[in-house]
Parts: sequence; structure tokens; C-alpha cells
Amino acid sequence: MARFFNNRSRKVGLPPGSAIYTGKNQQGSSSMEILSFSPEAVEEKKTAEFDDILLLPHNRINWININGVHDVERVKSLCDHFEVHPLITEDILNTDQRPKLDVHENHIYVVLKMVEFLPDNAEIKMEQVSFIIGKNFVLSFQEVVGDTFNSVRDRIHARGKICGRGAEYLLYALIDTVVDNYFVALEKIGDEMELMEEDLMLNPDTESVRDLYTLKREMLALRRAIWPLREVIAQMEREDSRLVTKATKLYYRDLYDHMIQVIDTIETYRDLLSGMVDLYQSTISNRMNSIMKVLTIISTVFIPITFLTGMYGMNFDYMPGVSNQNGFWILAGVVLVSIVSMLFYFKKQGWFN
Amino acid sequence: MARFFNNRSRKVGLPPGSAIYTGKNQQGSSSMEILSFSPEAVEEKKTAEFDDILLLPHNRINWININGVHDVERVKSLCDHFEVHPLITEDILNTDQRPKLDVHENHIYVVLKMVEFLPDNAEIKMEQVSFIIGKNFVLSFQEVVGDTFNSVRDRIHARGKICGRGAEYLLYALIDTVVDNYFVALEKIGDEMELMEEDLMLNPDTESVRDLYTLKREMLALRRAIWPLREVIAQMEREDSRLVTKATKLYYRDLYDHMIQVIDTIETYRDLLSGMVDLYQSTISNRMNSIMKVLTIISTVFIPITFLTGMYGMNFDYMPGVSNQNGFWILAGVVLVSIVSMLFYFKKQGWFN
Amino acid sequence: MARFFNNRSRKVGLPPGSAIYTGKNQQGSSSMEILSFSPEAVEEKKTAEFDDILLLPHNRINWININGVHDVERVKSLCDHFEVHPLITEDILNTDQRPKLDVHENHIYVVLKMVEFLPDNAEIKMEQVSFIIGKNFVLSFQEVVGDTFNSVRDRIHARGKICGRGAEYLLYALIDTVVDNYFVALEKIGDEMELMEEDLMLNPDTESVRDLYTLKREMLALRRAIWPLREVIAQMEREDSRLVTKATKLYYRDLYDHMIQVIDTIETYRDLLSGMVDLYQSTISNRMNSIMKVLTIISTVFIPITFLTGMYGMNFDYMPGVSNQNGFWILAGVVLVSIVSMLFYFKKQGWFN
Amino acid sequence: MARFFNNRSRKVGLPPGSAIYTGKNQQGSSSMEILSFSPEAVEEKKTAEFDDILLLPHNRINWININGVHDVERVKSLCDHFEVHPLITEDILNTDQRPKLDVHENHIYVVLKMVEFLPDNAEIKMEQVSFIIGKNFVLSFQEVVGDTFNSVRDRIHARGKICGRGAEYLLYALIDTVVDNYFVALEKIGDEMELMEEDLMLNPDTESVRDLYTLKREMLALRRAIWPLREVIAQMEREDSRLVTKATKLYYRDLYDHMIQVIDTIETYRDLLSGMVDLYQSTISNRMNSIMKVLTIISTVFIPITFLTGMYGMNFDYMPGVSNQNGFWILAGVVLVSIVSMLFYFKKQGWFN
Amino acid sequence: MARFFNNRSRKVGLPPGSAIYTGKNQQGSSSMEILSFSPEAVEEKKTAEFDDILLLPHNRINWININGVHDVERVKSLCDHFEVHPLITEDILNTDQRPKLDVHENHIYVVLKMVEFLPDNAEIKMEQVSFIIGKNFVLSFQEVVGDTFNSVRDRIHARGKICGRGAEYLLYALIDTVVDNYFVALEKIGDEMELMEEDLMLNPDTESVRDLYTLKREMLALRRAIWPLREVIAQMEREDSRLVTKATKLYYRDLYDHMIQVIDTIETYRDLLSGMVDLYQSTISNRMNSIMKVLTIISTVFIPITFLTGMYGMNFDYMPGVSNQNGFWILAGVVLVSIVSMLFYFKKQGWFN
Repeated sequence: MARFFNNRSRKVGLPPGSAIYTGKNQQGSSSMEILSFSPEAVEEKKTAEFDDILLLPHNRINWININGVHDVERVKSLCDHFEVHPLITEDILNTDQRPKLDVHENHIYVVLKMVEFLPDNAEIKMEQVSFIIGKNFVLSFQEVVGDTFNSVRDRIHARGKICGRGAEYLLYALIDTVVDNYFVALEKIGDEMELMEEDLMLNPDTESVRDLYTLKREMLALRRAIWPLREVIAQMEREDSRLVTKATKLYYRDLYDHMIQVIDTIETYRDLLSGMVDLYQSTISNRMNSIMKVLTIISTVFIPITFLTGMYGMNFDYMPGVSNQNGFWILAGVVLVSIVSMLFYFKKQGWFN
Repeated sequence: MARFFNNRSRKVGLPPGSAIYTGKNQQGSSSMEILSFSPEAVEEKKTAEFDDILLLPHNRINWININGVHDVERVKSLCDHFEVHPLITEDILNTDQRPKLDVHENHIYVVLKMVEFLPDNAEIKMEQVSFIIGKNFVLSFQEVVGDTFNSVRDRIHARGKICGRGAEYLLYALIDTVVDNYFVALEKIGDEMELMEEDLMLNPDTESVRDLYTLKREMLALRRAIWPLREVIAQMEREDSRLVTKATKLYYRDLYDHMIQVIDTIETYRDLLSGMVDLYQSTISNRMNSIMKVLTIISTVFIPITFLTGMYGMNFDYMPGVSNQNGFWILAGVVLVSIVSMLFYFKKQGWFN
Repeated sequence: MARFFNNRSRKVGLPPGSAIYTGKNQQGSSSMEILSFSPEAVEEKKTAEFDDILLLPHNRINWININGVHDVERVKSLCDHFEVHPLITEDILNTDQRPKLDVHENHIYVVLKMVEFLPDNAEIKMEQVSFIIGKNFVLSFQEVVGDTFNSVRDRIHARGKICGRGAEYLLYALIDTVVDNYFVALEKIGDEMELMEEDLMLNPDTESVRDLYTLKREMLALRRAIWPLREVIAQMEREDSRLVTKATKLYYRDLYDHMIQVIDTIETYRDLLSGMVDLYQSTISNRMNSIMKVLTIISTVFIPITFLTGMYGMNFDYMPGVSNQNGFWILAGVVLVSIVSMLFYFKKQGWFN
Repeated sequence: MARFFNNRSRKVGLPPGSAIYTGKNQQGSSSMEILSFSPEAVEEKKTAEFDDILLLPHNRINWININGVHDVERVKSLCDHFEVHPLITEDILNTDQRPKLDVHENHIYVVLKMVEFLPDNAEIKMEQVSFIIGKNFVLSFQEVVGDTFNSVRDRIHARGKICGRGAEYLLYALIDTVVDNYFVALEKIGDEMELMEEDLMLNPDTESVRDLYTLKREMLALRRAIWPLREVIAQMEREDSRLVTKATKLYYRDLYDHMIQVIDTIETYRDLLSGMVDLYQSTISNRMNSIMKVLTIISTVFIPITFLTGMYGMNFDYMPGVSNQNGFWILAGVVLVSIVSMLFYFKKQGWFN
Repeated sequence: MARFFNNRSRKVGLPPGSAIYTGKNQQGSSSMEILSFSPEAVEEKKTAEFDDILLLPHNRINWININGVHDVERVKSLCDHFEVHPLITEDILNTDQRPKLDVHENHIYVVLKMVEFLPDNAEIKMEQVSFIIGKNFVLSFQEVVGDTFNSVRDRIHARGKICGRGAEYLLYALIDTVVDNYFVALEKIGDEMELMEEDLMLNPDTESVRDLYTLKREMLALRRAIWPLREVIAQMEREDSRLVTKATKLYYRDLYDHMIQVIDTIETYRDLLSGMVDLYQSTISNRMNSIMKVLTIISTVFIPITFLTGMYGMNFDYMPGVSNQNGFWILAGVVLVSIVSMLFYFKKQGWFN
């Protein structure tokens, strides 16, 4: 559960706006990519440095992507260049943000979670992505290097519709990619749940209940990471800022519908998981009943007849029938009748179903 | 659970508005019907082609119905002809939409789920239906060929009241038919639940709890498919578009009342199913108690007297009473008294109820 | 559960406003009563016919009550005479309506459920009652003949305050009578629950859990039938129609307070029933524990000593102590000590509480 | 549960505004006190009669308190004198009102519940108190004689701040006293719960679960009685009537904060009680496990070795080793080894923890 | 649970605004610190007296901190000096306040809870802190001496940005410190929960369920103490008082986001704890099943064969096969076959998994 917080405690006592990275991988490489495009031209720089930013053309949309926000210096200098408020810079570096949208005079800040489901250990991997858009630029900050946005890059290189629109449409395209990945993750989780359900019905042991519990926990974390994004997108649709054009709002509305569907599915999954817990409990109770039935049948059949043999195992000098030549067989007959009538009784009670 | 998504993942990375079919039956025939009517005339074309559309009279209501949306080309050309936004065309082809209503300047888009309950395997079959209405046309898109709308067709052929009203009244009649089918499905589910409840009381085994769980899952899916339609109809009632006349709104209000009742019933069914889980758990606990009672009574009666016989089965040279001629009968008497008093004790404890 | 729907499916495919009766008792007599009153005069006709309606005085309040809505013709002709919208006529005949209020230009339509609790089989009987009020008339439609409204008739005959007020006050008086009957039904249900609670504590068997479950189901149906009436009354209080005077609104506010109390009680009852399920489960668990304790005490006491006797029941030629004259008594002593120490141990563990 | 209603059924069929007492103690004395005060003078009459009211000075605040609302005549004549609406008089006499506030032109009506917790039988005693305030008078109606308001009387006699303020401040002081008593009751309930929790952990028997269930029921009733008062006080704070001055509103706001705290505590108590049910269930399950462990250990240790002795208790003519002089001791050795290894196995399984 | 109230009952019957301390540590030292600062100068007085307040410069921000509110006289004289309303003075002394914000004409009153988690006994320690801010002063009241605000003091001494801003920014900095401490406490609780979860899986005994229950209770108290603070901060952000500048509102918005995250985490923790209860119950059920399996296997294997030996332990004169030389071995063979087939049966039933 420690995952719910990163190293947040190291910030206690510092003034607001202190630029401190709180994520996990404090080490590792960090890089910057620049993609500058207009309907006429597309220019890409894979490993850019800060100086490249100063030379960016103003009549194009400039998309600057940073992989690895643990490089605090790089993030800070970039944000300062684009006159981003220090509180936002702090938020970018603090990798346990809740998805949210902040509208400032000259830029809009969006933070959300990218999600990947690893079926091997039923783990949901999350990564924080921050976006800042201004009139003609989009900054994106990823925690680690990833290829999620490649499809957008391809569409730009292919001079798609995307090239003729503003920064806020690029932002839409990027968020849309993230949301599409939610669907992929949920599809995988759905498959996992189907396997789990079968497993639970066939073999309800401690292992499977633990897996179930783990998945419930993961869904809790997923819900927490995704749910607020709906409101973020709704805000973008309502936004009256000059940064968001009316034509693009239609796309945000479509995206909003997708989010509703994502959330709907998460809620349904949670309900299904609760139902699976009930199913598990019922199956266990049923098993217990079967086990007890076996024990009771065996005990009820054999304990009385064992008593009978005990009677004739006693060493009294005078015992009725011991000298009878058929004594043994008579007793054996009594035993047999008693067994059969017991079994008949249990059958009538429906214990063999 | 895979049902919650169709092949959505194949759309990841594509630009918005890409016309790709995501449903299940990718193959099979697709057809188009046209029904063109006014109070004066009704004309029907069962297997229409795209060219027929160009010849449609403007002074009639033209209802074009497509069976099988997997024919992407057909859907796309039709939508383009009626100047439908590409995002909507995409939604029509994407068969896991949530019910919703989109109002555009010249047309209204409604998508909803048609529902059928198959009692044989307690399965709920769902099909997506999309509607687009404009000033004098209604487009309807069904996933598969079906006869649900035949009653509406009959009313048109019979020159019913429906012929003298606009496209939005035809839309109302179509949705009304869908909602009526919800009642039919819920009636069947109610019957199924009644059977299940009896089964659960008489024979609470693993099979019945699994059926119960499956039905709960189905109800979850049903609720998810139907619930949002209420809001869709409420929006139609509130809609200030010139496409919806005041007279028709009265009918939408009536439809809204029906939807409330459908949703009410779904919620009640869910509560009843939860109650049935409780009932099942209680019945199982009771059964366990009965089983344990049998075991305990048998053990408690026979174990002590078996011990007694064991005492006199020992081989000590000097044992009190073994040479007594009535020894055996005295011990048998002790045993009998002990059995009777045990049973009396259990009776007093109420264990035989 | 089939009760949740009447024969609704027979309406599938029909146009809206089709007058078809969907209730249960399709047969039986139907009658019409007319009560025409002003402060000056009261005139009653117990078995009126349609022609009597044409002669009704316009300067009085005319209350026309129909017993038995399965007489479709009668209902239809009456509604047509008073120019009631066909959708409302349909609703009157459809006896599984949710309580609701529809305001039209010249009349107000109210539908609600009358409730009676039959303690013998813990069943809640419901009957649909519809009202239509206009400027000087009130139509009331009951499913079956009943004496619920007799108290109102008596007050009219006694020339009570009610005679000097309008149709909307008569409507209030009628609804008030229905709501008063809710209190009576709830009082009876409360008594039933008290009996059930005692039963559950003393004798928690399958029978009582089934009764509990049945009552929960009944409460679910009751809640569904009553809850929406609150909103109906609130709407009457807010209504700006010229049909509702300000003086009467005060009475509707009072009625609203009563409804809140009814709903409050229903919710409390539901909570109490849930609590009783918990109590039942706990009692069952406790019983199981007691049963297991008995079994364990008996087994733990006797199994080891039975083993001891088994040791000396063996047939080895050389056994230590068998020839000792006090051998039997020594062993018996060991057994006694062992029993006493076992019981002492269980006492210390608190197993006898 | 009959407590949820008093003798309400006796009112069925009567016209609204009928003055009928529905409480429990239909007998007993009823009295009236008058306290008439201004900053200059305080005058008290302990056993006033109706005629005293006619002589009350108009330039003072007159507080008339009635103990025992079953004296219908007294209540009615008082209400008529102060021109109280008959529906309110009816409410005062009906002692199962929900807390509410009614604003009329010349007076405000407030009804609420006074609460007392009797720890001896863990019962919550409730009494209905009604207030009517006008420009210079406050009427208060208590079900039974009580000393709750003595502290307010003392403050008036002491010529406290209260004397210089209006009727609505006196009302505030009286409600404040009632709310303070809620805190006292909740404190006692909290103590009771602490005792119950300990009891549940040490000795989880049927008795304690029944107490727990009873307290849950009482909390349900308490919540029902107190919750609506929050809204009543909020309405007083918002009230724009000339009867409530702005200075007093500050006090109502403070009172509102107290109410929030009371409700908060009730909700927390309810959560705690639910948690205690869980705790109880877990403890019971654990006990069951311990009991079963004892049984299983004893059975598993002794049943196999008893079988062994049974083998050598058989009467075959030729048995291996019976004539061996150490036969008995060898078998005893085998038994010992078997016991030790069993215990070792259980220890390894952690069954002795 | 007594913790939910302090000695509140001692205030019953007193007029509003009575300055009475209701906290726990009625004894102990109380002190006052003054920190007076502007961008130009910082002046601190560690142990100030009331007279020092009279000399405070008006052109600086004066922060007066009181440690130990049980010194009623000191609190009262300070509040009177700054013209604080008596109801607020009462609230400061009453240490079981719910977090809230009161805006008065010349000052704003904020009360909240400081939280510390002590992992040793899994206890959450809470302390009430009250703030009053005016145009150029901040009063802070702590229940006990603490070092929480030292980081703010350090920032002031270091002439940080904080010195150039108003009293409402200092308030923000102080609340921010408190909220940061929430994160620290939640991080510790998260660690505790992780330990508990492991413990629950490995060793689900009564001890661990009690710890779980205690933590649930603590989380309940924590939630109750923190939740309302969200609304307090939202009110500060919306506040139109001249006491809160627009620039500072941005910081309150940031703080609001932090609060959302804190609350989100608390809710997630509560869900996780509920999940842990389920997990515990399932683990216990599984254990029970294992125990019962052992018992049933042992009983089912040995009881029938013990009966067999009993048969041949009987003392009939004529018994079949007793004189057979291999009789013993034949019976032993039968026993062996019976054991092996039993075990085989259980293996097939999957009882050994």
C-alpha cells in the first residue's frame, strides 16, 4: 500500500512551490524530444537540449516531450522558460498527483495517469503524465521513456488532419491515446477476471481468494487514478478560455463519452469482483457442507455398530447367545440391516445429492 | 466478461472518426429497407440500394433501416449523404456504445440497446440500435436482421396516426417498441427468478448458487445497458431543437414514465437477488446445523456407552461382576438408561426441531 | 415475483394510447357511484349509468367513483366525456403504474397505490387508484369494490367543511384517507416484525428465515409502491395551476409531512429487517458453536479413556498388571481422574458458559 | 417496534385538524406554568390556569409551558387563544411527529424530540416537545413533567442576557438545552458501547449479540428522532421572518454546528456498531476454529491408536507376537511414537497457536 | 469511544459563550510566543505575556501562538483584546470541535485537527488547533506544546517570501504544514496496513482481527477529524472578504487539491480495510475447511476398520475364520486395502490440495 504515496514526506516543512522530485526511480536517463509542425512542414528533433527551445518557430505548433521527470533541472528550466507557475512545476515533479486541470491566463495544465496491465502478476502499472498547453506549444512530461505517443507522432508525420489544428487538438489527441490505452488495460483485466472466475469455481483455495483480493486492490487504485479524469475532460469541454476552440470541444465531448464508458466498466468490474467474493464464500460453505456430510455419514453408520461389537466383546461369564452357533452371523445380519437402513435414511434426506 | 468490450483494441492509435466496425459478427449479409410515407401515401422498398436514396421524395418522411452495421461502406456512404459528423459514424460502427443522445444542428443521434432474454441458458442478448433523425428522415441501424420494428411498419401500412406526424414521432414509436421489449424481457427474468427462488429453498447446491451468480451478472449488464436511456429520453423531452414538436413531447414524457418503471424493476430485481444470496447463505448454515446435530447426537449417545463396553472387554484377571449371571443384562440396562436420558436431554434442548 | 408486472406483454406492438386492461381480475362486476354536493345540497346515486353523468349540475362538485377498471368501455366513455387525454386513459387501465401526477390544461391526473396488510399470510395487498380532477369534478377509479372512501362520504353527508371547498380539497381528503391507511398497514407490519423478532431469537429455524425473507420482499414492493407518492404530493403543493387554491396547499403540506413519516418508517423497517438477518446469522453461528462444544467435550473426554480400555482389552499373553487383583480399580481410577481433569480444563476455558 | 407509532390508527377517517391525543399515558396530571419577563421584571406562576393568560402583560416576553399534552382541552383552548392553525394543534397532540418547523404569518411552530439514555436497560427514552413562538410569547408543550428547562428558568430569574432579548432567543435557549442533553445521552451511550465492546471480545455469547442488536435498534430510533432537527435549525438561521432577528441568527448558526456534531457522532456510533458486529462474527469464527482444532487433534491422535489396540484385541487363534513377552511394551512404544509424531505434525502446522 | 467527547457534559445548562475548557489535560504549563515580522524586520519573543501584546507594531504581521488552551484566563483576555466574539472564544476552549470556518466582519476563525500516528500502539493522536486572523495579526491556539510550526518559523527567520505577504498567507502556510503532516501520518498508517495484511494472511488469529478492528475505528475517527477541513479550505478559496487576497487564493486552491488527495487516500484505506476483513473471513473459512478435512479423513479411514477389528474381538464361541492360521493376516490385508482405497477416493475428490 505504500504505493499510494511516493516519498512525499521529504517535502514536509518546505515552502510551497519547492521543486522536488518525489517519484521512485531517482536515477536513470532523461531525454527531451521536440516536434514542430504546421500543415506545411514537420520537423522533429529526437534528443533536444534546452538551447533548441529558444530557436523554435512561433508560427508552428511546438510539442516538447520530456521523458523522465526526475531530471529536476531540466523540468524547472523548461517551465521557467514558458512562464509556468512554480506551484505547477512542483506538481509536475510530484508523481502522485490526482488527475486535474488548472487553467491559468496563458496556459492550461493537465495531469493524468497512464495505465498498463501486466497479466503475469496481475499488476497495474501506472505512470503520471503532465501536459501544459499554451497558444502554440504543448509540453508533455512522462515519468519514464515510453512509446505510447508514437501513434500521434506518426499521424503528424503523415501530415494528418492534426497538423492543421491548434495545440488544444494535439492535447486532445494525446489524452485520447491515453484513454484508448485504458480500454486495452480493461480488456486484459476482463480476461484475467474470466480466468479467475473459472478458477474460483473449480478450485476455491486460499491462493485464488488472495488473487481476488489483490485484483480488488488493484481496481481500487485504478479507479482512484482514472475517475477524476472524467471531470478534467468535462472542464475542457466547458472551458471558455481562448485556448480551446469550439470545433475541438466536439472532440472533447466524444472523449468524455469514452471516459464515461471507462468508468462504467470499472464500476461494473468492481461489482463483479464483489459478486465473486460472494460466490467464493458460498462455494466454500458448500464444500464444508459436503465434508461434514461425509464425516457424519461415516460416523453415524459405524459408531452404533461398533458399539454392538463392543457389547459382545465384553468378558462376562454369562452372555446371551455367545454359545449359539449362528450368533456371529446373526449379529452380522443385524449390522448389515442397520447399515442399509442408515444409508436409506440418508438417501431420503437427500444427503447424497 | 469479455462481452463488455468488443474488439475495441483494434482502434488504438487511429485518429478520431475512423470508421471501423468493432462488433462480433464481422461476416453475414447486410441489407437496407426504405419506407417512405405521408398521410396520403406509403411506399416500401425491402432491398434498397444507395441509389434509391437519391430518389426519395422530400415531402414525405423517409425511414431508412440498415440491418447489419458490419457493412462499413454502406453505413459510411449513407452517413456521408446525410452529412452526419464522422464521430457519429464512428459511434454507429462501434457496437459497445453506452445509450446516449447527441444533438447536432441538422440531426439528432440516439443510440440504445435492444434486449432479449433467452430463458434456456438464462442469457440476456443485447443488440445495439442507432437512430439519426433529421427534418424528414429517420435512419436506423441494427446489428443484425430482426423483426422488432415490424409492429411500427404495420401501423404505417395501416395509415395509422403515425403517418401524419413528423420524424421525431417515428423515432418515439421505434424507441417505444424497444422499451416495450424491455418489459417483456423483465417479465421473463421475473419468471426465471421465481423458479430460481424455489430451487434455492428446496435444493441449495452449488449449481443453484452459480445460476444465481450468473443472473446477477446478467442483471449488472442489463442495468448498464438500459439505465442511461432514461436520461436520453429526458433530454428528448427537454430538447428545444426545432426537430422536436411540443405535441410529441407529451409522448416522450409518457415514455419517460415507462423507463422509470423499467429501471425501478431492475433495481428491485437486484435487491431481490441480493436477498436470495442471503437466503441461500442462511439455508446453507441451517443445513450445516442439522448435519452437525445428527453427528453430535449419534456421537454423544454412542461414544460413552462404547466406553462402557470397553471397560468390560478388558482382560484383567479380577473384574467386578463378570461372574455375576445377570452382569450382561445389568450393563445392558445401564446402557439403555443412558441412551434414553441422552435423548431426553436433547429433546429438552430442542435439538429435534 | 411475477406480481411486478401484470399482463403488460399483451400491449407490445400496439400504438400509444390503446385502451387495454392489464390487471388480474378480468371478470367480475363493475359499478359507478355519483356523489354530487355543494354546501347547500348533497345528492348520491349508488348505481349510476353513463346517462346520469350528462345530467350532473355544474354548480356542485361532482365526484364520480368507478369500482372495477376492467370494464374498459365504461372507463373509456367516461374519460372521453371529460376530454381526458388517451395516454391517461391508457394509464388508468394499466394497473401497474408507478404513483405519479400529470398536470394537463383542464385536469390533473393522480395515480397511487392503496395498501392493506393481511397478517395471516404476511402479505401486502395493493390496489391501484386513479384520480382525475377538473374544475368541479373528481373522477376516482378503483380496481375492486372497497369501503376505503366511506369515511369521506360520511363527512360529505354530514355537511362537513369538505362541502364548502373545491375539487382539489376532495382529492386531498381522498389521498389523506389512503395515507392514513398506510399508517394502519405499517402498524400491523410493525406488530408482525415484533413477533418475528421474538421467534427468531427463540427458534431460529429455516421457517423463520423464510418468513423474514418474504417480509423483506414485501417491504421492497411496498417501498416501490409508496415512495413516489411523496413527490406527487410535493408537486401538488408546488402546483401553480388554477385548479389548486392556496388554502388547500396548506393541507397538502401537512400531507407531505405524513408521507415523509411513512417513508421514514419504511426505511427504518428495512434497516430493522437487515438487522434481524444479522441477528439470525449470529444466533445460528452461536448455536453451531454450542453444538460443536457438546461434540468436542464428549469426544475429548471419552476417546482417550476408550483407548485406555482398548489397551487392556488386548490379548497379549504377558500384560503388566492384569493379574493384579486391584488392576481393574486402578484403571477405573485413572479414567475418573482423566475425566475430571478434562472437565476442569473445559471449565477453565469457559466452554460451559 | 410498536414504538414507532402511537395510537395513530384511532385517527383514521377523521377530518384533518381533529384534536386527538395519540400518545401513551392517557392519564396523569397536566399543569401549566407561566414565566413573564422583561429586563426589568420577572414574574412566575407555577400552576396557572387559562384565565391567567388573559391578564398577561404585552410589553414582556411571556413563556407558557404546558406539562402533559394529553389534556386536550387545555392545549386546544390555549392554541385557539393564540390563533394557532388547527393543523398545528393536531400536530402538538400527535406525539409521533418528526422534528419540523412551520412558519406561519404570526407564529413559528417547532417540534422536536427530547432524549434521555437509561443505561440500566440500555433504553433511549424520547419525549416530544413542541414550541410556538409569536412576537412576545413562547408556548412550550411537554409530554410529561420534566426539569430539563430549569437551567433556562434559572438564567431568567438571574436576570441574565436572555431577559433583554426576544422570544426567538428564548426559543434558541430552550432548543440549545435540548441539544446539550443530546450530548449527555451520546456520552452515556459511548460509555455503554465501550463496555459492550469489551464484553464482546471476552465473552461473545448470544446475550451480548442481542444487546448489540438492541443498541443498533435504539440508535436507529435516535437517528430518526434527531436527524431532521438539523434542517429545522438551518431553516431558523435562514428564516427571513420578522420574528427572527439577525443577532439571534448567530446563535442559531452556533447551534447548527452543534447539531452537525451530534449527527456526526450518531453516524460514527452506527459505523462502530457495524464494526462490532463484524468483530463479533470474526471472534465467533475464531472460537469455532479453536473448538474444531481441539476435536481434530484429540480424534486424530487417538482414533488410529485405538484401532491398533483393536487389532490386538481380536480373538484369532494365531496372532503374530501375542506370545512375545514384550509384545505389550512394543505396542505401547508404537503408540507413544505415533502420539508424539502427531503432536509434532500439529505443532508444525501451527495448530497450537 | 469516550474519546469522541471530552468533558462536554460540564457545560450543560450554561448560557452560550461561557468560557469553559473541556479538554483532557486540565493541568500543565501554558505559554505564549509572539513573532512579529515584515519584509524588513523579524522579531521573536519566546515567552510573552499579555502586556507584550499591547506594544505590538501595527505595520507588521503579528503572529501570537498559545501553547495550552487550558489556561482559560489567558485565552479569554487575548480574545477580548482582539474583539473576538464570545461564541468563538467558547469554541477555542471546547477541544472537540469539528473543523470549521467562521467569517466575521473583522476576523476569520478556523479550527482544525492536527494528526500524528504512533505506530507502536497503532494509535492516532489528535490535537485541536484554532486560528484567528485579522488584518495584520494571526492568533494560533494549540492544545499542547508542539514543534509542528517550527518550519514556518524558520522560513520567516530566513526572510522567505512569506514575510512579504499578509496574515492570510501565514494562515495558509500554517494549514499547509498541518496538511503535510496528514500525508506523513497516512504514509505511516499505510506501512502499518501492509504489515497487518501480511500478518492476516500468515496468521489469522483473534489478535490480528482485533488490531484490524482497532485500525478501522481509528480511521473512522481520522476521517471525522479531517473530512470537514476540505470544505473549510474551499470556503477560504471562495471567500470574498477583504482579508483574503486573490494571489493567496491560488495557494488555497493548491491546498484544496492536497486535501482532496488526503481524503481520497482515507477513503481508499477504508476500502482496503474492508477488503482485509473479507480476506480474513475467507482465510478463516479456508482454515476451518482444512481442519475439517483432516478430521474427516482420519475418521473416515479409521472408524470402519476399527469396526472390523471389533467384529473379531467378539467372544462368540463359533466365529468364522478365527482358527484359520492366516486369519489375522487376511484381516490385516482387508484393512490395508480399505485404507488405500479411502485415500485414493479422497485424492480423487481433491481433498489433499
